Amino acid sequence: MGVPVEEDGDTLSGFKTTRVLRDCAREKTIFVHGTIADQAAVVLLEKTPITKDSLDELFSGSRMELDMRNDTCSTYLLQPPAHLNRIMTTVVCPATEEHMKKYQSGELFLVEETEADYNSITLACIEQQSFSIQWMYNVLEKKAEADRIVCEDPDPQLGFVLLPDVKWDQKQNDNLYLVAIAHQRGIKCLRDLTPEHVPLLKNILKKGEEAIFQRYGLPAWKLRVYLHYQPSYYHLHVHFTALEYDAPGCEMTRAHLIQNVIQNLQLYPQYYRSHTLFFTLKEGDGLLAKFKEAGRL
Amino acid sequence: MGVPVEEDGDTLSGFKTTRVLRDCAREKTIFVHGTIADQAAVVLLEKTPITKDSLDELFSGSRMELDMRNDTCSTYLLQPPAHLNRIMTTVVCPATEEHMKKYQSGELFLVEETEADYNSITLACIEQQSFSIQWMYNVLEKKAEADRIVCEDPDPQLGFVLLPDVKWDQKQNDNLYLVAIAHQRGIKCLRDLTPEHVPLLKNILKKGEEAIFQRYGLPAWKLRVYLHYQPSYYHLHVHFTALEYDAPGCEMTRAHLIQNVIQNLQLYPQYYRSHTLFFTLKEGDGLLAKFKEAGRL
Repeated sequence: MGVPVEEDGDTLSGFKTTRVLRDCAREKTIFVHGTIADQAAVVLLEKTPITKDSLDELFSGSRMELDMRNDTCSTYLLQPPAHLNRIMTTVVCPATEEHMKKYQSGELFLVEETEADYNSITLACIEQQSFSIQWMYNVLEKKAEADRIVCEDPDPQLGFVLLPDVKWDQKQNDNLYLVAIAHQRGIKCLRDLTPEHVPLLKNILKKGEEAIFQRYGLPAWKLRVYLHYQPSYYHLHVHFTALEYDAPGCEMTRAHLIQNVIQNLQLYPQYYRSHTLFFTLKEGDGLLAKFKEAGRL
Repeated sequence: MGVPVEEDGDTLSGFKTTRVLRDCAREKTIFVHGTIADQAAVVLLEKTPITKDSLDELFSGSRMELDMRNDTCSTYLLQPPAHLNRIMTTVVCPATEEHMKKYQSGELFLVEETEADYNSITLACIEQQSFSIQWMYNVLEKKAEADRIVCEDPDPQLGFVLLPDVKWDQKQNDNLYLVAIAHQRGIKCLRDLTPEHVPLLKNILKKGEEAIFQRYGLPAWKLRVYLHYQPSYYHLHVHFTALEYDAPGCEMTRAHLIQNVIQNLQLYPQYYRSHTLFFTLKEGDGLLAKFKEAGRL
């Protein structure tokens, strides 16, 4: 036990905020670093979901403030009875530096990368790669995770290995997440793709979809298949997620639908070489530091 | 005005629930179908984010119930003072079948729309428009929400009105969400855009960014600016959200970054006319039914 905790929650009422580590408006969460009786603590707050059972009381027992009306639409701020509106709270005390890092979010920046930026800034950064791609080579060479492979096409040019992503617990299709890793080496990312890679991309899409249908019963139109730019690992790989899974990393500032990539390459051979590409980077990222040094942010 | 609304919100207190259309525990939202004085209504409820400013009062003024403790970790249920815990509420009344469908959760489908599909299937569907765009005309003509306008450029070709989206409570920048509505009529969606619209898009982007910086202090590189395809309303409008807000509708299968749209139009004039576009549609959507009838799914 790190700190004595009173049954009535006195400890938390003595909490002093040092700084906000992260907050998420969409999820109604906020993670705070502070102290309790001079010990470092992290407090995680999350509002409770709105339940069906509470609706009657919510509509009959809340204070209401009309905010705006236009045509058939009106908005209000409701102030429900306190017992309908709770906050789930987790306290870690004493907390370590590792806890802080785990729960901290970095500021995000929208980066605009021209072809020249890629050649002068990004390429050098990729070459001093922060994340090793050794684990991908291990998969391709069956030195690791061989028992997890869902399908493989061994062709050295067109082939790939498909396996569940580590983030997927494989217990249900709701959050289905697989990754296809290309056998062909030397394709670092989207920027390296030219029309000669279209057969490889089409092969990954078609055989990946088939394998997922056979193994998990999800047809192609229930899948989202895409590449990341910037990726975490600079060796060509493709993400397969269930369309109904609100998977992290599907936003337009990071994800590129493979069907769209194929089409762009077929119609405009230099699309990914010459286009300006937009993506987000987080404070603390090495590549972001390089863009700042170069005066591009 | 579809229904008389009392300033004190009496109307909402007479709301009778018929069924829950959708709820999301992650986002703390619930969408409900019901009636107000015998008229069909849809009510959208979403808890407000937890703000940094409220933390001191939250820790000192809440009732706390200890739930569990294990080693350095404890969990509580906090019951904060009612004024710290509000619910943003949007009422649509009278609501149509289309509104029910929009807010109901249903199976998702990935749709592939060629230029021919757009002309033979989608266009007819848009023309029997499900959602009225009257509310947008009201805004442009100052018949409603005039006091909410953040900035306006009155030019009939290049101009627009920028105002907070109804989903944003405007209490903090964390979930900043504004919408720019173009004055120019007749641009239904992405498919209608040609290089002649580049000055309009650039004007919305530049002046919208400037206005948001002046009013809310968020610089351009902290914003995500984009169009939806398919949009909910077929009159040109542009979404501005805080980059750090994981806003719904930012995924690659719906959102198109405006900078990328401008670039595509400049380099490939027919890009949005002739490209195959991919998007998701939900079971029950009229357009999805048409794609199925046409054997395209």
